[in-house]
Amino acid sequence: MPDASLLEAFPTPTDTPFVIEHVAEEFTSVCPVTGHPDFGEVRVRFAPGPGSAGGVCVELKSLKLYLQSFRNEGAYYEAVTNVIRDDLAALMSPQWLRVTTVWRGRGGIRSTIVADAGNPPGC
Amino acid sequence: MPDASLLEAFPTPTDTPFVIEHVAEEFTSVCPVTGHPDFGEVRVRFAPGPGSAGGVCVELKSLKLYLQSFRNEGAYYEAVTNVIRDDLAALMSPQWLRVTTVWRGRGGIRSTIVADAGNPPGC
Amino acid sequence: MPDASLLEAFPTPTDTPFVIEHVAEEFTSVCPVTGHPDFGEVRVRFAPGPGSAGGVCVELKSLKLYLQSFRNEGAYYEAVTNVIRDDLAALMSPQWLRVTTVWRGRGGIRSTIVADAGNPPGC
Amino acid sequence: MPDASLLEAFPTPTDTPFVIEHVAEEFTSVCPVTGHPDFGEVRVRFAPGPGSAGGVCVELKSLKLYLQSFRNEGAYYEAVTNVIRDDLAALMSPQWLRVTTVWRGRGGIRSTIVADAGNPPGC
Amino acid sequence: MPDASLLEAFPTPTDTPFVIEHVAEEFTSVCPVTGHPDFGEVRVRFAPGPGSAGGVCVELKSLKLYLQSFRNEGAYYEAVTNVIRDDLAALMSPQWLRVTTVWRGRGGIRSTIVADAGNPPGC
Amino acid sequence: MPDASLLEAFPTPTDTPFVIEHVAEEFTSVCPVTGHPDFGEVRVRFAPGPGSAGGVCVELKSLKLYLQSFRNEGAYYEAVTNVIRDDLAALMSPQWLRVTTVWRGRGGIRSTIVADAGNPPGC
Amino acid sequence: MPDASLLEAFPTPTDTPFVIEHVAEEFTSVCPVTGHPDFGEVRVRFAPGPGSAGGVCVELKSLKLYLQSFRNEGAYYEAVTNVIRDDLAALMSPQWLRVTTVWRGRGGIRSTIVADAGNPPGC
Amino acid sequence: MPDASLLEAFPTPTDTPFVIEHVAEEFTSVCPVTGHPDFGEVRVRFAPGPGSAGGVCVELKSLKLYLQSFRNEGAYYEAVTNVIRDDLAALMSPQWLRVTTVWRGRGGIRSTIVADAGNPPGC
Amino acid sequence: MPDASLLEAFPTPTDTPFVIEHVAEEFTSVCPVTGHPDFGEVRVRFAPGPGSAGGVCVELKSLKLYLQSFRNEGAYYEAVTNVIRDDLAALMSPQWLRVTTVWRGRGGIRSTIVADAGNPPGC
Amino acid sequence: MPDASLLEAFPTPTDTPFVIEHVAEEFTSVCPVTGHPDFGEVRVRFAPGPGSAGGVCVELKSLKLYLQSFRNEGAYYEAVTNVIRDDLAALMSPQWLRVTTVWRGRGGIRSTIVADAGNPPGC
Repeated sequence: MPDASLLEAFPTPTDTPFVIEHVAEEFTSVCPVTGHPDFGEVRVRFAPGPGSAGGVCVELKSLKLYLQSFRNEGAYYEAVTNVIRDDLAALMSPQWLRVTTVWRGRGGIRSTIVADAGNPPGC
Repeated sequence: MPDASLLEAFPTPTDTPFVIEHVAEEFTSVCPVTGHPDFGEVRVRFAPGPGSAGGVCVELKSLKLYLQSFRNEGAYYEAVTNVIRDDLAALMSPQWLRVTTVWRGRGGIRSTIVADAGNPPGC
Repeated sequence: MPDASLLEAFPTPTDTPFVIEHVAEEFTSVCPVTGHPDFGEVRVRFAPGPGSAGGVCVELKSLKLYLQSFRNEGAYYEAVTNVIRDDLAALMSPQWLRVTTVWRGRGGIRSTIVADAGNPPGC
Repeated sequence: MPDASLLEAFPTPTDTPFVIEHVAEEFTSVCPVTGHPDFGEVRVRFAPGPGSAGGVCVELKSLKLYLQSFRNEGAYYEAVTNVIRDDLAALMSPQWLRVTTVWRGRGGIRSTIVADAGNPPGC
Repeated sequence: MPDASLLEAFPTPTDTPFVIEHVAEEFTSVCPVTGHPDFGEVRVRFAPGPGSAGGVCVELKSLKLYLQSFRNEGAYYEAVTNVIRDDLAALMSPQWLRVTTVWRGRGGIRSTIVADAGNPPGC
Repeated sequence: MPDASLLEAFPTPTDTPFVIEHVAEEFTSVCPVTGHPDFGEVRVRFAPGPGSAGGVCVELKSLKLYLQSFRNEGAYYEAVTNVIRDDLAALMSPQWLRVTTVWRGRGGIRSTIVADAGNPPGC
Repeated sequence: MPDASLLEAFPTPTDTPFVIEHVAEEFTSVCPVTGHPDFGEVRVRFAPGPGSAGGVCVELKSLKLYLQSFRNEGAYYEAVTNVIRDDLAALMSPQWLRVTTVWRGRGGIRSTIVADAGNPPGC
Repeated sequence: MPDASLLEAFPTPTDTPFVIEHVAEEFTSVCPVTGHPDFGEVRVRFAPGPGSAGGVCVELKSLKLYLQSFRNEGAYYEAVTNVIRDDLAALMSPQWLRVTTVWRGRGGIRSTIVADAGNPPGC
Repeated sequence: MPDASLLEAFPTPTDTPFVIEHVAEEFTSVCPVTGHPDFGEVRVRFAPGPGSAGGVCVELKSLKLYLQSFRNEGAYYEAVTNVIRDDLAALMSPQWLRVTTVWRGRGGIRSTIVADAGNPPGC
Repeated sequence: MPDASLLEAFPTPTDTPFVIEHVAEEFTSVCPVTGHPDFGEVRVRFAPGPGSAGGVCVELKSLKLYLQSFRNEGAYYEAVTNVIRDDLAALMSPQWLRVTTVWRGRGGIRSTIVADAGNPPGC
């Protein structure tokens, strides 16, 4: 089962705004209806809070273990995406967070889900 | 014949805005003039209404069956695109919906049609 | 010689704004100076007027024949692009029209010409 | 139903050996078990018999219509490939014929089938 | 655990030699040392025995289920490859069989393993 | 009309065997049945005779003009390929010559024709 | 030495705003320090002044000869880019001009320089 | 150890705003926890201050040597990116500077870090 | 310094011939003349001896550590390749071994070195 | 002018046969007829003689300088290729040498020339 307690964070090393993206190319979970495996890619992009204000960044290895905890979980695409968004937002309280899941497809249809928290840094 | 009754929906699992894209890479219908088959890709992108307000999302397998129902239908590119847009807008009443059809071409000309309903989420 | 009378149109099948793109990958004309053939791609993208207001869309096969009528015409890149833009704008009076020609190059320089009519739909 | 009577041929225009390949990128048939459509590519490569000895080549448009006749046929990958090989071999009695079908996949597995008749020209 | 009893076969539909390739793009097992998941692609290519001599071909859906049975199995790359080769050879007694596994890599090294049974068809 | 008299040659600059390939990416002729233009690529690969034995190579600019002379010629794929092969073989009497034409396709089928003269250099 | 007198222009053929891009893929100059050759691509994109107001466009062949005049010139990346921008701005007085140079790199670092004159057309 | 004293600059050769990007494709440092090497790409993009106001640009070879000084340095992705941003900002006081590091990944997750100084030129 | 004692092996798990390829995409050493780093890819392909005859395969993690031991070694391309070939041949006594190094290049020239030991398996 | 005296060699570091390929991606010379520059890629592949028998390999930097000496030389494609082959064969007396030149093309035709010396190593 997805286990948010696996996630760890470290203090943002600067107060200057910056953006981090982690892309896990090998994500798998299970379709709750058919029991067949789903395969996809999970992209996490965020602007952490400033270090002097207690901002934190998700630690890379803990993110990997957290994503592996979905391996045998039966969950819809939409639910997987929203759970990851919520767990990471709870961990980091970032200025902005975007979770994108890109699924390799079933029955000739491939899907992408995009969920945000907070406001993206000004462009 | 295209059959909108094949489409099913499920409640949006969150109130936080998010975006879903389904890409059906293997769509085929028939040219109403020549009777020759047309081949293309159908992309459906939408921001569903919030769950607590009765928002719904199109169910993936029902979308697949719906798109298959065009297989032996004679229809112009523009009509196919507008029909799919209208059927999905009627099903979901989404905040925003974009249907894009990308056709592999006839006689050395390939075409793309883009039809929207509602307003895209702020970028 | 380019022959605008080859172009035909059909009524826009909806009043909801949408965008159509036709890409002719195999366009050829002749350099008016050297007599050597030029090869390129012609992209036509437009937002037609609404059907209830008399809006029309260019018919695909007539577009193909029209573009073939440039085959032995001597014309500069810029002129070809402006002529196609003007002929299609006269035919359709669209809300917006963009003609892009992409030339495979002569003497190590490849060129692209972009000509618009009207205003693009709000993004 | 696949209809071999749609196939036509014309006399090989030379006695010098040569090789012809036709690739139909948009082939579709139906899975005989599930009724779902299959999509793929059909490649036909052959060395025709010499013209002075009555050799013939399949005519391109007739090949297109023949392949379209599989559109609503329920047939396994292997059967489709063998039927096309047999029908073309019966039509042309070529020195060599290779039919390759490349399927876009179902359930995450994509397949390729290769069937020959006669001996390939010396390399 | 990998379960060869999931594999099913059907009679080869012809006596003319031909070659079949199935590519499962989404294979996963588990590293027996670290417990971390491995991801890769499994390619199965074979020339079945002739139908009149009792030759059989592996059935596609059963192959999919068989490959899914490795999901939580701890096994080295080399062992996975040899087990699949042995199980399919036992099922089909083919004229020739090649199993190729392509792994996405760990620690910056990606690996490919190729195992054969029998002799490839004359080229 | 194709005009072989446009072709010119120069003496092979060496007696050591070597291979030359010229690829004309922008070839066009006309379908003799429909009158529609065909577009493709012509590849000429050859091993010229040795210079001291009177061997010659086709001159590049003359090849370009020769290929342009097919521009408004109605000819089948197979005939175009065989005519080019015969004209170049007559000009150069090479040790080996291969003419490959790659056509962009009509009606969803793209074709390739390969015609040789003489024997390829030992590999 | 770069020779701006090689540049020629012709009157803009229309008053409707449009954009022209010329890409010279094969540019070379010489590093002023080491004397080693630099290789890169020069992209010139501009919106010419309207024809009725005396607007002009750079002539393609003269642009080619002008760019060739840098062949044995020792010049830094930044200087090459600014010189081309200044010479073309002086020639055309365009509404907007962007010169981009893309260098293939030295010592594992590749560089891109972008220099503008005037304001880009409203997007 | 990273050595900012290796960095050198030269006066901006113009007062017209322009943008420079240097991409070092072969960057390596060491993970401070595991001691394993990290590999990535460092992109430096900046708008230098105008020459007449004392603006300077980083010299290319000094940038290369500076980046090589991270070779055996143990540092996290985020720290590497912020250090390079700070060192280059201190050297150049540019109008705008963006440092992007793209890491090839560890354990199936690849990362990108983007850090800015100043405001990007108006687009 | 390269350290062959880091290499470990495990018994070949079968007597049936098979082939293993490991590709380390991120290899670096140092040019012995200039002291600048070189970057490349190392491909190791081999057919191990049969398990019942004492055949062994190189262990993946030990290969990674061995390749990392070249990090600060000054060595020419040719020497790196021959050393790896010799060290792996000494470790495994394989039926066949091919080491290929692909270097990203210096001064505009990229290089590939291929060194074999023993005879490749019959094709 | 091409200057073979720029070429230097070093002793082959082993007696075990191996193959070296150097690819110079940025070669330029001048067309002897038009004076326009030609651009291309030069690939040099060879099996050096064994070290104990006095075998040598071309030194990489000297090869770079040698290839740069063609920069302002007027020479046909075929001549450039044969000269490089002859100069390198005279320098190294290799077991096998292949020089391939790949030209970016003039007038829509791109060319490749392949010249060998000696016999390729057994495959």
